[in-house]
Amino acid sequence: MRTDTRKQFVETTSQLLHERGYEGTSLKDILAKSGAPRGSLYYHFPGGKDELVCAATRHGVDYVSEFLRECFAADADPIAAVRAYASEAGRELAESGYILGCPVAPIVLDGIQSPELGDICREAMATWQDIIAGRLRLAGLEDERAMSFAALLVSAIEGALLVARALREVTPLDRVGSELAAQLTAMLQEVEDSHE
Amino acid sequence: MRTDTRKQFVETTSQLLHERGYEGTSLKDILAKSGAPRGSLYYHFPGGKDELVCAATRHGVDYVSEFLRECFAADADPIAAVRAYASEAGRELAESGYILGCPVAPIVLDGIQSPELGDICREAMATWQDIIAGRLRLAGLEDERAMSFAALLVSAIEGALLVARALREVTPLDRVGSELAAQLTAMLQEVEDSHE
Repeated sequence: MRTDTRKQFVETTSQLLHERGYEGTSLKDILAKSGAPRGSLYYHFPGGKDELVCAATRHGVDYVSEFLRECFAADADPIAAVRAYASEAGRELAESGYILGCPVAPIVLDGIQSPELGDICREAMATWQDIIAGRLRLAGLEDERAMSFAALLVSAIEGALLVARALREVTPLDRVGSELAAQLTAMLQEVEDSHE
Repeated sequence: MRTDTRKQFVETTSQLLHERGYEGTSLKDILAKSGAPRGSLYYHFPGGKDELVCAATRHGVDYVSEFLRECFAADADPIAAVRAYASEAGRELAESGYILGCPVAPIVLDGIQSPELGDICREAMATWQDIIAGRLRLAGLEDERAMSFAALLVSAIEGALLVARALREVTPLDRVGSELAAQLTAMLQEVEDSHE
Protein backbone atom coordinates (compact mmCIF):
# COMPACT_ATOMS: atom_id res chain seq x y z
CA MET A 1 0.00 0.00 0.00
CA ARG A 2 2.75 2.47 1.02
CA THR A 3 4.76 1.47 -2.01
CA ASP A 4 1.77 1.83 -4.31
CA THR A 5 1.11 5.40 -3.21
CA ARG A 6 4.76 6.30 -3.63
CA LYS A 7 4.85 4.69 -7.06
CA GLN A 8 1.70 6.50 -8.09
CA PHE A 9 3.17 9.89 -7.11
CA VAL A 10 6.28 9.13 -9.17
CA GLU A 11 4.27 8.08 -12.21
CA THR A 12 1.94 11.08 -12.01
CA THR A 13 4.91 13.44 -11.74
CA SER A 14 6.63 11.73 -14.63
CA GLN A 15 3.52 12.10 -16.80
CA LEU A 16 3.17 15.81 -15.97
CA LEU A 17 6.87 16.46 -16.68
CA HIS A 18 6.44 14.94 -20.14
CA GLU A 19 3.27 16.95 -20.77
CA ARG A 20 4.31 20.38 -19.59
CA GLY A 21 7.95 20.36 -18.46
CA TYR A 22 9.52 21.08 -15.07
CA GLU A 23 8.09 24.56 -14.59
CA GLY A 24 4.61 23.46 -15.69
CA THR A 25 4.52 20.67 -13.10
CA SER A 26 3.14 21.96 -9.79
CA LEU A 27 2.56 20.11 -6.53
CA LYS A 28 -1.09 21.17 -6.82
CA ASP A 29 -1.42 19.40 -10.20
CA ILE A 30 0.38 16.31 -8.93
CA LEU A 31 -2.02 16.08 -5.99
CA ALA A 32 -5.10 16.70 -8.15
CA LYS A 33 -4.05 14.13 -10.72
CA SER A 34 -3.07 11.45 -8.18
CA GLY A 35 -6.11 12.02 -5.97
CA ALA A 36 -3.96 11.49 -2.84
CA PRO A 37 -4.01 13.77 0.21
CA ARG A 38 -1.29 16.39 0.68
CA GLY A 39 -0.06 14.75 3.90
CA SER A 40 0.61 11.53 2.04
CA LEU A 41 2.77 13.36 -0.50
CA TYR A 42 4.94 14.95 2.19
CA TYR A 43 5.11 11.62 4.04
CA HIS A 44 6.67 9.96 1.01
CA PHE A 45 8.52 13.00 -0.30
CA PRO A 46 9.44 15.33 2.59
CA GLY A 47 11.58 17.34 0.13
CA GLY A 48 8.44 18.25 -1.86
CA LYS A 49 8.58 18.99 -5.59
CA ASP A 50 12.36 18.74 -5.94
CA GLU A 51 12.47 15.28 -4.38
CA LEU A 52 9.50 14.09 -6.44
CA VAL A 53 10.97 15.41 -9.70
CA CYS A 54 14.32 13.74 -8.93
CA ALA A 55 12.56 10.41 -8.23
CA ALA A 56 10.42 10.69 -11.40
CA THR A 57 13.38 11.61 -13.59
CA ARG A 58 15.52 8.81 -12.14
CA HIS A 59 12.64 6.39 -12.75
CA GLY A 60 12.45 7.44 -16.42
CA VAL A 61 16.22 7.37 -16.88
CA ASP A 62 16.46 3.84 -15.41
CA TYR A 63 13.75 2.65 -17.78
CA VAL A 64 15.67 3.95 -20.81
CA SER A 65 19.00 2.61 -19.51
CA GLU A 66 17.52 -0.83 -19.00
CA PHE A 67 15.99 -0.80 -22.48
CA LEU A 68 19.33 0.21 -24.04
CA ARG A 69 21.27 -2.43 -22.05
CA GLU A 70 18.91 -5.07 -23.41
CA CYS A 71 19.03 -3.78 -27.02
CA PHE A 72 22.79 -3.38 -27.07
CA ALA A 73 23.62 -6.56 -25.11
CA ALA A 74 26.83 -8.37 -26.10
CA ASP A 75 24.91 -11.17 -27.83
CA ALA A 76 22.45 -8.86 -29.65
CA ASP A 77 22.85 -7.49 -33.18
CA PRO A 78 23.94 -3.83 -32.88
CA ILE A 79 22.32 -2.87 -36.20
CA ALA A 80 18.97 -4.28 -35.08
CA ALA A 81 19.51 -2.41 -31.79
CA VAL A 82 19.79 0.93 -33.60
CA ARG A 83 16.52 0.20 -35.41
CA ALA A 84 14.81 -0.93 -32.20
CA TYR A 85 15.92 2.18 -30.28
CA ALA A 86 14.39 4.47 -32.93
CA SER A 87 11.20 2.48 -33.50
CA GLU A 88 10.48 1.96 -29.80
CA ALA A 89 10.98 5.68 -29.11
CA GLY A 90 8.61 6.47 -32.00
CA ARG A 91 6.02 3.94 -30.88
CA GLU A 92 5.88 5.28 -27.31
CA LEU A 93 5.69 8.86 -28.53
CA ALA A 94 2.84 8.17 -30.97
CA GLU A 95 0.88 5.92 -28.58
CA SER A 96 0.97 8.60 -25.89
CA GLY A 97 -0.48 11.20 -28.26
CA TYR A 98 2.94 12.81 -28.84
CA ILE A 99 3.73 13.35 -25.16
CA LEU A 100 6.16 10.66 -23.96
CA GLY A 101 9.68 11.54 -25.05
CA CYS A 102 12.97 11.59 -23.19
CA PRO A 103 12.67 11.95 -19.38
CA VAL A 104 15.73 14.19 -19.24
CA ALA A 105 14.74 16.67 -21.97
CA PRO A 106 12.08 18.64 -20.01
CA ILE A 107 14.47 18.99 -17.06
CA VAL A 108 17.37 20.18 -19.20
CA LEU A 109 15.32 22.71 -21.19
CA ASP A 110 13.82 24.32 -18.10
CA GLY A 111 17.29 25.14 -16.87
CA ILE A 112 18.06 22.24 -14.42
CA GLN A 113 16.84 23.66 -11.13
CA SER A 114 19.07 21.79 -8.63
CA PRO A 115 22.58 20.25 -8.50
CA GLU A 116 21.00 16.82 -7.91
CA LEU A 117 18.86 17.11 -11.05
CA GLY A 118 21.97 18.23 -12.92
CA ASP A 119 23.78 15.07 -11.82
CA ILE A 120 20.88 12.85 -12.90
CA CYS A 121 20.76 14.46 -16.38
CA ARG A 122 24.53 14.37 -16.91
CA GLU A 123 24.83 10.77 -15.75
CA ALA A 124 21.90 9.69 -17.95
CA MET A 125 23.47 11.10 -21.11
CA ALA A 126 26.89 9.65 -20.24
CA THR A 127 25.43 6.22 -19.36
CA TRP A 128 23.35 5.91 -22.54
CA GLN A 129 26.31 6.84 -24.73
CA ASP A 130 28.58 4.42 -22.84
CA ILE A 131 26.16 1.48 -23.22
CA ILE A 132 26.06 1.99 -27.00
CA ALA A 133 29.79 2.71 -27.38
CA GLY A 134 30.63 -0.42 -25.35
CA ARG A 135 28.71 -2.64 -27.76
CA LEU A 136 30.31 -0.95 -30.78
CA ARG A 137 33.83 -1.46 -29.40
CA LEU A 138 32.95 -5.11 -28.95
CA ALA A 139 31.96 -5.17 -32.64
CA GLY A 140 35.44 -3.93 -33.52
CA LEU A 141 35.08 -0.14 -33.75
CA GLU A 142 37.93 1.93 -32.39
CA ASP A 143 37.28 3.80 -29.17
CA GLU A 144 36.88 7.31 -30.59
CA ARG A 145 34.75 6.06 -33.50
CA ALA A 146 32.50 4.11 -31.13
CA MET A 147 32.04 7.14 -28.83
CA SER A 148 31.41 9.39 -31.80
CA PHE A 149 28.71 7.16 -33.30
CA ALA A 150 27.12 6.69 -29.86
CA ALA A 151 26.95 10.48 -29.40
CA LEU A 152 25.37 10.81 -32.85
CA LEU A 153 22.83 8.08 -32.14
CA VAL A 154 21.73 9.43 -28.74
CA SER A 155 21.59 13.01 -30.07
CA ALA A 156 19.65 12.00 -33.18
CA ILE A 157 17.03 10.06 -31.20
CA GLU A 158 16.67 12.91 -28.67
CA GLY A 159 16.24 15.41 -31.46
CA ALA A 160 13.96 13.22 -33.57
CA LEU A 161 11.62 12.89 -30.56
CA LEU A 162 11.43 16.66 -30.45
CA VAL A 163 11.00 17.15 -34.20
CA ALA A 164 8.39 14.35 -34.28
CA ARG A 165 6.46 15.98 -31.45
CA ALA A 166 6.45 19.31 -33.32
CA LEU A 167 5.29 17.65 -36.56
CA ARG A 168 2.99 15.15 -34.82
CA GLU A 169 4.32 12.32 -36.98
CA VAL A 170 6.98 9.67 -36.38
CA THR A 171 8.72 10.08 -39.75
CA PRO A 172 11.84 11.72 -38.19
CA LEU A 173 12.37 8.65 -35.98
CA ASP A 174 11.91 6.28 -38.92
CA ARG A 175 14.40 8.27 -40.96
CA VAL A 176 16.97 8.53 -38.17
CA GLY A 177 16.65 4.79 -37.51
CA SER A 178 17.16 3.72 -41.10
CA GLU A 179 19.90 6.28 -41.86
CA LEU A 180 21.94 5.29 -38.80
CA ALA A 181 21.36 1.55 -39.24
CA ALA A 182 22.68 1.89 -42.80
CA GLN A 183 25.65 3.92 -41.61
CA LEU A 184 26.51 1.37 -38.90
CA THR A 185 26.20 -1.48 -41.39
CA ALA A 186 28.80 0.21 -43.60
CA MET A 187 31.09 0.89 -40.62
CA LEU A 188 30.97 -2.73 -39.43
CA GLN A 189 31.53 -3.96 -42.98
CA GLU A 190 34.68 -1.84 -43.12
CA VAL A 191 35.91 -3.40 -39.87
CA GLU A 192 35.28 -6.88 -41.28
CA ASP A 193 37.03 -6.06 -44.57
CA SER A 194 40.07 -4.73 -42.73
CA HIS A 195 40.43 -8.07 -40.94
CA GLU A 196 40.46 -10.10 -44.14
CA MET B 1 11.60 54.33 -29.93
CA ARG B 2 8.40 52.29 -30.33
CA THR B 3 10.27 49.72 -32.37
CA ASP B 4 13.06 49.53 -29.81
CA THR B 5 10.68 48.78 -26.94
CA ARG B 6 8.91 46.12 -28.97
CA LYS B 7 12.22 44.56 -29.98
CA GLN B 8 13.41 44.60 -26.39
CA PHE B 9 10.28 42.74 -25.21
CA VAL B 10 10.82 40.10 -27.90
CA GLU B 11 14.48 39.63 -26.97
CA THR B 12 13.78 39.44 -23.25
CA THR B 13 11.04 36.86 -23.83
CA SER B 14 13.30 34.85 -26.10
CA GLN B 15 16.05 34.82 -23.48
CA LEU B 16 13.66 33.68 -20.73
CA LEU B 17 12.20 30.92 -22.97
CA HIS B 18 15.71 29.58 -23.51
CA GLU B 19 16.52 29.79 -19.81
CA ARG B 20 13.41 28.28 -18.29
CA GLY B 21 10.98 27.15 -20.99
CA TYR B 22 7.46 28.29 -21.83
CA GLU B 23 5.92 27.57 -18.43
CA GLY B 24 8.82 29.20 -16.59
CA THR B 25 8.44 32.45 -18.54
CA SER B 26 5.96 34.77 -16.82
CA LEU B 27 4.80 38.25 -17.81
CA LYS B 28 6.06 39.41 -14.41
CA ASP B 29 9.59 38.19 -15.21
CA ILE B 30 9.47 39.69 -18.70
CA LEU B 31 8.50 43.07 -17.24
CA ALA B 32 11.09 42.89 -14.47
CA LYS B 33 13.88 41.92 -16.87
CA SER B 34 12.97 44.48 -19.54
CA GLY B 35 12.43 47.31 -17.03
CA ALA B 36 9.47 48.58 -19.08
CA PRO B 37 6.05 49.55 -17.66
CA ARG B 38 3.16 47.07 -17.89
CA GLY B 39 1.10 49.47 -20.07
CA SER B 40 3.87 49.50 -22.65
CA LEU B 41 3.83 45.69 -22.84
CA TYR B 42 0.07 45.59 -23.48
CA TYR B 43 0.38 48.46 -25.96
CA HIS B 44 2.78 46.44 -28.11
CA PHE B 45 1.32 43.00 -27.32
CA PRO B 46 -2.40 43.29 -26.54
CA GLY B 47 -2.57 39.47 -26.59
CA GLY B 48 -0.23 39.29 -23.59
CA LYS B 49 2.05 36.29 -23.01
CA ASP B 50 0.78 34.21 -25.94
CA GLU B 51 1.38 36.98 -28.45
CA LEU B 52 4.81 37.74 -26.98
CA VAL B 53 5.87 34.08 -27.00
CA CYS B 54 4.72 33.70 -30.63
CA ALA B 55 6.71 36.79 -31.63
CA ALA B 56 9.81 35.62 -29.73
CA THR B 57 9.64 32.10 -31.16
CA ARG B 58 9.10 33.41 -34.69
CA HIS B 59 12.07 35.73 -34.21
CA GLY B 60 14.28 32.79 -33.19
CA VAL B 61 13.00 30.55 -35.98
CA ASP B 62 13.66 33.22 -38.62
CA TYR B 63 17.20 33.63 -37.32
CA VAL B 64 17.89 29.90 -37.70
CA SER B 65 16.18 29.72 -41.12
CA GLU B 66 18.26 32.63 -42.40
CA PHE B 67 21.46 31.03 -41.08
CA LEU B 68 20.61 27.70 -42.77
CA ARG B 69 19.70 29.41 -46.08
CA GLU B 70 23.10 31.06 -46.07
CA CYS B 71 25.00 27.87 -45.11
CA PHE B 72 23.17 25.65 -47.59
CA ALA B 73 23.06 28.19 -50.45
CA ALA B 74 23.30 26.76 -53.97
CA ASP B 75 26.88 28.02 -54.41
CA ALA B 76 28.08 26.87 -50.95
CA ASP B 77 29.77 23.57 -50.13
CA PRO B 78 27.16 21.33 -48.45
CA ILE B 79 29.78 19.41 -46.44
CA ALA B 80 31.17 22.67 -45.04
CA ALA B 81 27.56 23.66 -44.31
CA VAL B 82 27.01 20.58 -42.14
CA ARG B 83 30.14 21.43 -40.16
CA ALA B 84 29.15 25.10 -39.85
CA TYR B 85 25.63 24.23 -38.62
CA ALA B 86 27.04 22.05 -35.83
CA SER B 87 29.89 24.33 -34.83
CA GLU B 88 27.79 27.51 -34.83
CA ALA B 89 25.12 25.82 -32.68
CA GLY B 90 27.85 24.67 -30.28
CA ARG B 91 29.50 28.08 -30.18
CA GLU B 92 26.26 29.91 -29.34
CA LEU B 93 25.36 27.35 -26.68
CA ALA B 94 28.75 27.52 -24.96
CA GLU B 95 29.05 31.33 -25.18
CA SER B 96 25.64 31.75 -23.54
CA GLY B 97 26.66 29.56 -20.60
CA TYR B 98 24.72 26.56 -21.97
CA ILE B 99 21.41 28.39 -22.37
CA LEU B 100 20.87 29.30 -26.04
CA GLY B 101 19.65 26.26 -27.95
CA CYS B 102 16.83 25.79 -30.42
CA PRO B 103 14.00 28.37 -30.14
CA VAL B 104 11.37 25.71 -30.85
CA ALA B 105 12.49 23.10 -28.29
CA PRO B 106 11.20 24.83 -25.11
CA ILE B 107 7.82 25.40 -26.76
CA VAL B 108 7.48 21.82 -27.96
CA LEU B 109 8.52 20.25 -24.64
CA ASP B 110 6.08 22.33 -22.60
CA GLY B 111 3.23 20.91 -24.65
CA ILE B 112 2.61 23.64 -27.30
CA GLN B 113 0.01 25.81 -25.60
CA SER B 114 -1.80 27.29 -28.62
CA PRO B 115 -2.64 26.35 -32.23
CA GLU B 116 -0.60 29.32 -33.43
CA LEU B 117 2.49 28.15 -31.53
CA GLY B 118 1.91 24.68 -32.95
CA ASP B 119 1.95 26.09 -36.48
CA ILE B 120 5.17 28.01 -35.83
CA CYS B 121 6.94 24.89 -34.48
CA ARG B 122 5.70 22.60 -37.24
CA GLU B 123 6.61 25.07 -39.98
CA ALA B 124 10.06 25.66 -38.48
CA MET B 125 10.93 21.96 -38.52
CA ALA B 126 9.56 21.51 -42.05
CA THR B 127 11.36 24.62 -43.36
CA TRP B 128 14.75 23.70 -41.89
CA GLN B 129 14.58 20.18 -43.31
CA ASP B 130 13.48 21.53 -46.72
CA ILE B 131 16.33 24.03 -46.92
CA ILE B 132 18.87 21.25 -46.33
CA ALA B 133 17.14 18.67 -48.54
CA GLY B 134 16.93 21.22 -51.38
CA ARG B 135 20.70 21.73 -51.35
CA LEU B 136 21.30 17.95 -51.23
CA ARG B 137 19.04 17.32 -54.23
CA LEU B 138 21.00 19.96 -56.10
CA ALA B 139 24.15 17.99 -55.23
CA GLY B 140 22.61 14.93 -56.88
CA LEU B 141 20.96 13.02 -54.04
CA GLU B 142 17.62 11.40 -54.78
CA ASP B 143 14.57 12.98 -53.18
CA GLU B 144 13.96 10.41 -50.41
CA ARG B 145 17.67 10.18 -49.57
CA ALA B 146 17.93 13.98 -49.38
CA MET B 147 14.89 14.24 -47.08
CA SER B 148 16.16 11.40 -44.93
CA PHE B 149 19.60 12.93 -44.43
CA ALA B 150 18.03 16.35 -43.76
CA ALA B 151 15.80 14.81 -41.06
CA LEU B 152 18.83 13.11 -39.52
CA LEU B 153 20.87 16.33 -39.56
CA VAL B 154 18.15 18.54 -38.00
CA SER B 155 17.33 15.87 -35.40
CA ALA B 156 20.97 15.28 -34.52
CA ILE B 157 21.69 19.00 -34.02
CA GLU B 158 18.50 19.45 -31.94
CA GLY B 159 19.43 16.48 -29.78
CA ALA B 160 23.11 17.36 -29.51
CA LEU B 161 22.12 20.80 -28.19
CA LEU B 162 20.15 19.05 -25.47
CA VAL B 163 22.82 16.47 -24.63
CA ALA B 164 25.49 19.21 -24.64
CA ARG B 165 23.42 21.33 -22.25
CA ALA B 166 23.06 18.35 -19.89
CA LEU B 167 26.79 17.58 -20.02
CA ARG B 168 27.85 21.25 -20.14
CA GLU B 169 30.32 20.54 -22.92
CA VAL B 170 30.11 20.92 -26.70
CA THR B 171 31.59 17.48 -27.52
CA PRO B 172 28.21 16.10 -28.76
CA LEU B 173 27.97 18.89 -31.34
CA ASP B 174 31.57 18.34 -32.46
CA ARG B 175 30.91 14.62 -32.84
CA VAL B 176 27.61 15.05 -34.68
CA GLY B 177 29.23 17.59 -37.02
CA SER B 178 32.18 15.41 -37.95
CA GLU B 179 30.18 12.14 -38.17
CA LEU B 180 27.57 13.67 -40.49
CA ALA B 181 30.11 15.59 -42.59
CA ALA B 182 31.95 12.29 -43.15
CA GLN B 183 28.71 10.52 -44.00
CA LEU B 184 27.69 13.21 -46.50
CA THR B 185 31.15 13.14 -48.08
CA ALA B 186 30.73 9.40 -48.72
CA MET B 187 27.19 9.88 -50.09
CA LEU B 188 28.26 12.62 -52.52
CA GLN B 189 31.27 10.54 -53.60
CA GLU B 190 28.87 7.71 -54.46
CA VAL B 191 26.77 10.08 -56.57
CA GLU B 192 29.90 11.23 -58.38
CA ASP B 193 31.10 7.65 -58.95
CA SER B 194 27.73 6.63 -60.38
CA HIS B 195 28.02 9.39 -63.00
CA GLU B 196 31.42 8.27 -64.25
